[in-house]
Amino acid sequence: MPYNYETVKVDVFPDGVAHVQLNRPKKLNAFNNALIGELGQVFREVSADRNVRAVVLSASGRIFTAGLDLTETSLKDSEAGDPARRSYHLRHHLKWFQESISAIELCEQPVVAAIHGGCYGAGVDLITACDIRYCANDALFCVKEVDVGLAPDVGTLQRLPKIIGNQSLVRELCLTARNMLADEALHCGLVNQKHETKEKTIEAALKTARVIASKSPVAVFSTKHNLNYARDHSVAEGLQYIQAWNAAYLNTEDIPLSIQAFIEKKPARYSNL
Amino acid sequence: MPYNYETVKVDVFPDGVAHVQLNRPKKLNAFNNALIGELGQVFREVSADRNVRAVVLSASGRIFTAGLDLTETSLKDSEAGDPARRSYHLRHHLKWFQESISAIELCEQPVVAAIHGGCYGAGVDLITACDIRYCANDALFCVKEVDVGLAPDVGTLQRLPKIIGNQSLVRELCLTARNMLADEALHCGLVNQKHETKEKTIEAALKTARVIASKSPVAVFSTKHNLNYARDHSVAEGLQYIQAWNAAYLNTEDIPLSIQAFIEKKPARYSNL
Amino acid sequence: MPYNYETVKVDVFPDGVAHVQLNRPKKLNAFNNALIGELGQVFREVSADRNVRAVVLSASGRIFTAGLDLTETSLKDSEAGDPARRSYHLRHHLKWFQESISAIELCEQPVVAAIHGGCYGAGVDLITACDIRYCANDALFCVKEVDVGLAPDVGTLQRLPKIIGNQSLVRELCLTARNMLADEALHCGLVNQKHETKEKTIEAALKTARVIASKSPVAVFSTKHNLNYARDHSVAEGLQYIQAWNAAYLNTEDIPLSIQAFIEKKPARYSNL
Amino acid sequence: MPYNYETVKVDVFPDGVAHVQLNRPKKLNAFNNALIGELGQVFREVSADRNVRAVVLSASGRIFTAGLDLTETSLKDSEAGDPARRSYHLRHHLKWFQESISAIELCEQPVVAAIHGGCYGAGVDLITACDIRYCANDALFCVKEVDVGLAPDVGTLQRLPKIIGNQSLVRELCLTARNMLADEALHCGLVNQKHETKEKTIEAALKTARVIASKSPVAVFSTKHNLNYARDHSVAEGLQYIQAWNAAYLNTEDIPLSIQAFIEKKPARYSNL
Amino acid sequence: MPYNYETVKVDVFPDGVAHVQLNRPKKLNAFNNALIGELGQVFREVSADRNVRAVVLSASGRIFTAGLDLTETSLKDSEAGDPARRSYHLRHHLKWFQESISAIELCEQPVVAAIHGGCYGAGVDLITACDIRYCANDALFCVKEVDVGLAPDVGTLQRLPKIIGNQSLVRELCLTARNMLADEALHCGLVNQKHETKEKTIEAALKTARVIASKSPVAVFSTKHNLNYARDHSVAEGLQYIQAWNAAYLNTEDIPLSIQAFIEKKPARYSNL
Amino acid sequence: MPYNYETVKVDVFPDGVAHVQLNRPKKLNAFNNALIGELGQVFREVSADRNVRAVVLSASGRIFTAGLDLTETSLKDSEAGDPARRSYHLRHHLKWFQESISAIELCEQPVVAAIHGGCYGAGVDLITACDIRYCANDALFCVKEVDVGLAPDVGTLQRLPKIIGNQSLVRELCLTARNMLADEALHCGLVNQKHETKEKTIEAALKTARVIASKSPVAVFSTKHNLNYARDHSVAEGLQYIQAWNAAYLNTEDIPLSIQAFIEKKPARYSNL
Repeated sequence: MPYNYETVKVDVFPDGVAHVQLNRPKKLNAFNNALIGELGQVFREVSADRNVRAVVLSASGRIFTAGLDLTETSLKDSEAGDPARRSYHLRHHLKWFQESISAIELCEQPVVAAIHGGCYGAGVDLITACDIRYCANDALFCVKEVDVGLAPDVGTLQRLPKIIGNQSLVRELCLTARNMLADEALHCGLVNQKHETKEKTIEAALKTARVIASKSPVAVFSTKHNLNYARDHSVAEGLQYIQAWNAAYLNTEDIPLSIQAFIEKKPARYSNL
Repeated sequence: MPYNYETVKVDVFPDGVAHVQLNRPKKLNAFNNALIGELGQVFREVSADRNVRAVVLSASGRIFTAGLDLTETSLKDSEAGDPARRSYHLRHHLKWFQESISAIELCEQPVVAAIHGGCYGAGVDLITACDIRYCANDALFCVKEVDVGLAPDVGTLQRLPKIIGNQSLVRELCLTARNMLADEALHCGLVNQKHETKEKTIEAALKTARVIASKSPVAVFSTKHNLNYARDHSVAEGLQYIQAWNAAYLNTEDIPLSIQAFIEKKPARYSNL
Repeated sequence: MPYNYETVKVDVFPDGVAHVQLNRPKKLNAFNNALIGELGQVFREVSADRNVRAVVLSASGRIFTAGLDLTETSLKDSEAGDPARRSYHLRHHLKWFQESISAIELCEQPVVAAIHGGCYGAGVDLITACDIRYCANDALFCVKEVDVGLAPDVGTLQRLPKIIGNQSLVRELCLTARNMLADEALHCGLVNQKHETKEKTIEAALKTARVIASKSPVAVFSTKHNLNYARDHSVAEGLQYIQAWNAAYLNTEDIPLSIQAFIEKKPARYSNL
Repeated sequence: MPYNYETVKVDVFPDGVAHVQLNRPKKLNAFNNALIGELGQVFREVSADRNVRAVVLSASGRIFTAGLDLTETSLKDSEAGDPARRSYHLRHHLKWFQESISAIELCEQPVVAAIHGGCYGAGVDLITACDIRYCANDALFCVKEVDVGLAPDVGTLQRLPKIIGNQSLVRELCLTARNMLADEALHCGLVNQKHETKEKTIEAALKTARVIASKSPVAVFSTKHNLNYARDHSVAEGLQYIQAWNAAYLNTEDIPLSIQAFIEKKPARYSNL
Repeated sequence: MPYNYETVKVDVFPDGVAHVQLNRPKKLNAFNNALIGELGQVFREVSADRNVRAVVLSASGRIFTAGLDLTETSLKDSEAGDPARRSYHLRHHLKWFQESISAIELCEQPVVAAIHGGCYGAGVDLITACDIRYCANDALFCVKEVDVGLAPDVGTLQRLPKIIGNQSLVRELCLTARNMLADEALHCGLVNQKHETKEKTIEAALKTARVIASKSPVAVFSTKHNLNYARDHSVAEGLQYIQAWNAAYLNTEDIPLSIQAFIEKKPARYSNL
Repeated sequence: MPYNYETVKVDVFPDGVAHVQLNRPKKLNAFNNALIGELGQVFREVSADRNVRAVVLSASGRIFTAGLDLTETSLKDSEAGDPARRSYHLRHHLKWFQESISAIELCEQPVVAAIHGGCYGAGVDLITACDIRYCANDALFCVKEVDVGLAPDVGTLQRLPKIIGNQSLVRELCLTARNMLADEALHCGLVNQKHETKEKTIEAALKTARVIASKSPVAVFSTKHNLNYARDHSVAEGLQYIQAWNAAYLNTEDIPLSIQAFIEKKPARYSNL
């Protein structure tokens, strides 16, 4: 039975959009080991689901997420006596946590985040691994880790500065742990749409996801894949890579299908990947 | 006879500014093989023209460009029977197209784009290879490729995210193919000046180009070259490279000339490279 | 005797904040060899001072800095007859100058710049090596080098484009040497706070520095260090690096201290590094 | 039940050495989907097995491996009609195959390959992912892929040139598909021990593995991990990474244990990771 | 008329092998501007010649090459008064020279060098850009540049250390300009076959080239291209690139052709790319 | 007073050769904090000494070095209570040690190591930072760290594999801590000359150093610098860097001087840098 999880809710709609929701509302969607583990599994399952062409990620309940669940710290199993062995286990735990978050980036379909209420700590790590971010008026973003005595280590420091073009702001946020409200998030480009309510934000995200799902899956997947590649390479390397890539994909039937649809002025129907 | 092209118009002014115009107005400056090929040639010729110190790129006619000319697809010669051989030829074609666009980036003189009306598909690839972008109020930008069933493959995915600091917006634009109007382009930094009309936009671009052309060509070329280098390397590598670079260029006569001019409060006259 | 410099003034406050001031007001804080050399020394000394947890950098007198002191050019010792030997010495000089500026980036504690009045040439190189930038209403930024016949070679070309997400603006500024006022600097993200006067700007910078100084020094140093690393590496490399890093630092006593403080609702007191 | 595989045999000895054997002798250990899949699983299981400290990889039967099993091609499921969709599935298949081979490189414990008889095609991809290679006098290595109409795509082209310092030889081998015998393999450094028989080769490999298993697991794992890292980064980056790494691991109890053992002239007993 | 050059002789044989010869025997094949320019043109023309599947590079006359032709120095046009402008022209000249040598590396078909007699200075730059190197007993290699007062700048410093696995030797050769004879060249892997005479060396090179020419051109070109890519990237990046690459090329008809030929035990006949 | 050190002996000869000797013979030249610190200082002083054009590094007494001096461990000051603070200090110590070793690589003049007797642990880190290595018949190399419970962290893992082209051997040496004798060191390319005695080894090293010292210092320094750069970059990047580099240095008077000397068949006399 597909998409059977406890802490994450998944709905797949006939139009090719999957709606993934953090689903520990009583715990304010805090990240315990169950949520971390399932999050990674969900996005790996979604990535392999050929019926899904775009994803919306939101959270149930009052806020997006309170961040790491400190009452259920997953680090307790690293209480080896030897500091080196403790470090060994901490690193493994970190790697596993990072891989859950990165499953969103590696998910072949684009992911649109719809954020409402508080989004703390690991929540920022999470949304910066998404492709597109919209938020509600009541959204509040906080890189909280410095207040708990550690540097954020599952993505924020690596992805946030490559997402918004303002290092001065990034460093202020990460070093002071101050709150950033929706207006500032829109202004600095962390999100690029802001809506009145949680519901309207999710509706806007679903609308964008539906648009994406209606396009050629060859084009959409290739675009996300190459944007990720380009972010981490020089322009020349990115160009060489897409030469190799499109040498295969320009042979697609989706191109004549698209042109035909354009001429006939009716939507094209693309088969799944 | 210099600058003799069919689909591109080139004027070189005595003040060291070259004005390059896409010139297939009846075809809405759509990119056919002729335009692609000539564009690369023009910028290689400009780059070697020691009388040119800055370039303005604009387009004749009603819009900037409609993008790829689908009626004259250059991919027809890749109809080999074997899919691998077809891929082989597609990759060569792509490489050639990329090199034409990249000729703008490699052109030693800075290029200021003045954009009016629609700028679709390959047009965005084109302008993101320029150094500075201004647009008219009626400008409209659209990363159209996903609508034709392919990922943009001649520069947009590689350059656009490194030009504007807003990945959320970049991905929305590339994955939905929605239009972006002049105001949003100004706000997100794709352009950094917006003017009332096409004519005023070109005039502003020419003005900036003239300012650049009046500066030391050693300084101008070194600046563009090292900005390109820095974009694709770490800060430490960029610093090491410019150490090696300026070890040669700090010997220039343009420095005492500039200081002298500053003292005498009259413009310096620099010789060509 | 610590912090004994001629051209730079350093005050270390009991709350862990160091205030570093450029201090050649009569020469408009222009960079002569003394200032360049001392600047590097100061930030190396600060970096090793375990009582300092955050730094504010400002300038005494009327403007922030006039840039390079052309009346005291440090290049005079490179007047070897052989052009290659001259280049050899120029490169050494450049490397030394770059290392002084980079000492700010390598300083383990975050550095908040408070800029007022003119900030020309090498001043922009200087502030782009800081972590956070605030400015006064009268601030004016100018990448002046192209007017002196050279490409900026001590950091602006390498750091500025990675700090503000607007290449079109960066290139316009660097190629035309035009002035940018406080409003535009705020809008483009070069600074992320703008205040009425020099004094209020410094006070805001000190306030942010005090907030940073009150946090866990393990968390703060790790955050700055990894933000620097992430800027110059792919996301995947940045994630791998912080795995290795935090495998050591997650063992810190600052985490239980922080959680305890959170529960008890009183500030934590962290020991120095 | 641990290590329960069909096509791979695994023995774990009390001295901490695991012996992994390719085990399709009737099919000359040719790589079918079962073997590819299980190979990856085995090395992921070994990597997580804290009782294993070193691994020997050999093959049962007459030869090491005949390479890809062409009678059981795994590519049949990629027979989509659209060439782009076929490419999509081919790429997924390749990625999966690569990940199986790379599981050896990512396996935390060092892997010593003991090769006898023919080692064709995918066999070379396999052994170049190991850490140390020994061979028998009858060993024969052949980069066979070019004879089947494709470039090797699961590791040989990427790893072989970084393992042996002779590009001229690498290219001759890969482009002509000629056989290389044991003597030449020893001379060029592909293997660094050559033994009379298969049995003696395995014994030598086990002996080396036992030596490694007797050392501090902190030291051994850190050494393999950092050698992999160093291969793919500059010297400066490798040095910075091991600074971060050993900041944690130099705290280990294994160092005083080792020194104590050295003084007492008896072997140290290190606890598992 | 194809392959019409003065200083380079080209023969294309019906078996798909091109024989390229340096052809200034009276000048000991010294590199003047004509030879440098034509060399680049030849290899670009060869690369585009679909009838050529492998190349042998040798030299006519008594020795392979005396290196740069100092009597015809191409640097004379850089006699600008301003040192910066002289540097500007020197850099352009160097870039042009490098591109001629690199045309061999970028030539899609593998190039086998057959070296006899002296191979000085630029000759070493030249042969290190080839794929496979064989030499005659009388061959003598000398990285001569340091004796002329400069560092080799058209490839030796960049390619030689990545070709032979012995940095100690590389540095001794480059810093002392001592001669290396055929035996040492074979031992260190600069060449991987040594033959009695020039004629036998060329025959061996032609034989290898014929073997390569008889293979699938899809496989051969893909192999060379990916070996070049792998040399300059991490293993992980190389693997990702060939995933994208072979996603296209595994669809080739050459694979079933090869398997069929193997079963029928007769050579396959592959069509040109 | 120049070159005044306790644990290192430095002689500078009139022919431009400096002879640096490890000089703690009674302690078998083991690395205590004094030796580590002075080693870095010596090579920084040598690098800036314009009278020195080449360096020989050897060791006084019976063996080259016993490696780290465990009786005088420099890690004792890292006994902070908090594990994170201990890691912080360990990392600083490591960085300092690495910088001492890397001072050899960064020393502008080439360094020829002459090794006799045992060369253990940190000794291998040391010699792999040199440019050229010769050894005596009694030399013995041992990557000892794994026996002390740690991974080598001051250079061996980063440099050794890039120096000798045999990863299988590198990993065997580093993971087993076995001894390697002079013959094997010669065969694998760690050294490229082997001599009967310590004295003859030093004489051979001095002879090579004298040859290097007699060449153009512009050529020699440029060659070492660019070999270091090329090792850590792609071929294309290395070529671009030396374009920028030699644009300055090809202007040198050493080139006409060299050609003149060649014509007149007498040695050229080059001025110091």
